[in-house]
Amino acid sequence: MDEIITLDYGSGGKKTSRLIEDMLLPAFDNPALSQLGDGAVVDGGARLVFSTDSFVVDPIFFPGGDIGKLSVCGTVNDVSVCGGEAKYLSLSFIIEEGMKVSDLERIVASIAKTCQKAGVSVVTGDTKVVERGRGDKIYINTAGVGILRYEGLSPANIKPGDKVIVSGTVGDHGTAVMLSRSGMMEGEILSDCAPLNGLCEDILSSGEAVRVLRDPTRGGVATTLNEFVEGTKLSIALSEELVPVKDNVRAACDMLGLDPMYCANEGKLLAVVGEESAQRVLEIMQANEYGRDAAVIGTVTEDYAGKVYMNTAFGGKRILQKLTGAQLPRIC
Amino acid sequence: MDEIITLDYGSGGKKTSRLIEDMLLPAFDNPALSQLGDGAVVDGGARLVFSTDSFVVDPIFFPGGDIGKLSVCGTVNDVSVCGGEAKYLSLSFIIEEGMKVSDLERIVASIAKTCQKAGVSVVTGDTKVVERGRGDKIYINTAGVGILRYEGLSPANIKPGDKVIVSGTVGDHGTAVMLSRSGMMEGEILSDCAPLNGLCEDILSSGEAVRVLRDPTRGGVATTLNEFVEGTKLSIALSEELVPVKDNVRAACDMLGLDPMYCANEGKLLAVVGEESAQRVLEIMQANEYGRDAAVIGTVTEDYAGKVYMNTAFGGKRILQKLTGAQLPRIC
Repeated sequence: MDEIITLDYGSGGKKTSRLIEDMLLPAFDNPALSQLGDGAVVDGGARLVFSTDSFVVDPIFFPGGDIGKLSVCGTVNDVSVCGGEAKYLSLSFIIEEGMKVSDLERIVASIAKTCQKAGVSVVTGDTKVVERGRGDKIYINTAGVGILRYEGLSPANIKPGDKVIVSGTVGDHGTAVMLSRSGMMEGEILSDCAPLNGLCEDILSSGEAVRVLRDPTRGGVATTLNEFVEGTKLSIALSEELVPVKDNVRAACDMLGLDPMYCANEGKLLAVVGEESAQRVLEIMQANEYGRDAAVIGTVTEDYAGKVYMNTAFGGKRILQKLTGAQLPRIC
Repeated sequence: MDEIITLDYGSGGKKTSRLIEDMLLPAFDNPALSQLGDGAVVDGGARLVFSTDSFVVDPIFFPGGDIGKLSVCGTVNDVSVCGGEAKYLSLSFIIEEGMKVSDLERIVASIAKTCQKAGVSVVTGDTKVVERGRGDKIYINTAGVGILRYEGLSPANIKPGDKVIVSGTVGDHGTAVMLSRSGMMEGEILSDCAPLNGLCEDILSSGEAVRVLRDPTRGGVATTLNEFVEGTKLSIALSEELVPVKDNVRAACDMLGLDPMYCANEGKLLAVVGEESAQRVLEIMQANEYGRDAAVIGTVTEDYAGKVYMNTAFGGKRILQKLTGAQLPRIC
């Protein structure tokens, strides 16, 4: 292979084949992928979960992860919070001419490692190359197909008195990427980027009263919770002192003028559960490697229809609206 | 909505919601999509076909199509040639800051229209926005899920004596895009961009001896046929005078220094079928709106192991290798 990716690698001709055969097939070795047709034939199920995300994070390598790891976790998590057992990924690259082949190799290795950790397979893919200045090193799309295991998860199930649980500290990914971009405090804060399918399975297989799960990525915890109640008669009351935020994340957010409640997370889960199930679900989360710092952070109420608000440490109330504007462009 | 797309539209916050609710949901209205979760829950099947492609075609509007139409047809066709009944699409945009909202609306309308024509639904999606100069108006990824209806299509089935059929004229898409880019002969040649799921179904439901189907996109007919026989003891002998090429496509290719056999097609099918089935499959193709100009163009032989060659109009032989280099960057 050459040292840099040229337009030839996106031609569909010999260099594209070389990339597939020398780098991609060995990394993602599995029977469906090696059929090498235009698509993969795989085992299905009666009901499926299907999700997609494109990843444009800048920089492509950041403390705690990289665009490859992120592109697997993001889609695995989206399938999992819908009640699906994530099984198959598609993987599509848009590479900027001039990208270092060694960087691509690192990303491909990271994708393969994360797939193994999450127990999913890349079964089909695509590579395009665009001219210098028409992209930014690499953009990755993954789509995920899972088999539906748990039906009926939906914000529509949320009831007054339900508890809101977050699986760990808030704002790590967004802060890690922003610091990495700014060059300040570099490497002190790690992205939380992680595959949460095991955590979702632990929670959902418990039979507890789980109303809805969601991974609060772009827009953060505040935006996701707003999506749960907007247009309804319900509100969500959070307690500021219960929201777990790492000290260095809080310090970095202060410095950068960010609010951790609006910073992207890539390895966190929000669960709304029946009051009677809150303690048990909390314990289940805390027993999982990705839920150790889980905490009940709020309650579903009926006092401010459609709103999310924070009971502050000083006894005040603060409405948390959906994110307005791009607090953090290209965070995922 | 604003007149241009700003970074805010990719934030995951209010403007992203506005884009989804005001433009995307009305265009792709269906129950799975309007669940509005991180993924869609849909009906499945015992065996699935899963495929993906990212589309980076330049320009985004070209005679006969646009990047939206292309992104539906490309993935529907990939699922269909694998024997799948294409059902669900994911749709993911990477938009360059500054794109005109009116252009995006045109593309969304084109996607919706093509989905309707092909009988598929967009059930899940994603939108990212990158800074000016980090993209080129819009890149689109689609992934497609289909239910496997016809098992066992594979180049491994090809036997000596089999016939190679192409569903119509060769090189239309690539030539249309290149002309459109160059400003020459503008609009004279239309892309063949079309959903071929109906044509595939017509062929496969006939019960004829169909070995493999493939849509010869990037790299063209020559590259796809090479993929069929490379590494085997078989070869493919084509007859130059049997390959259907439009006169204006041939003229444009001469002018641009291109070979229609290597130009991308986006609405054509290659079928390798048993000799005894060739006439019937040809008639089936010709009865379909997208197969009217179908022609038998060659035969599977054993004389040049792993090679594709052309018996020229002048009685010579010309080896057609896989595409080397990027004849046509960003053609799809």
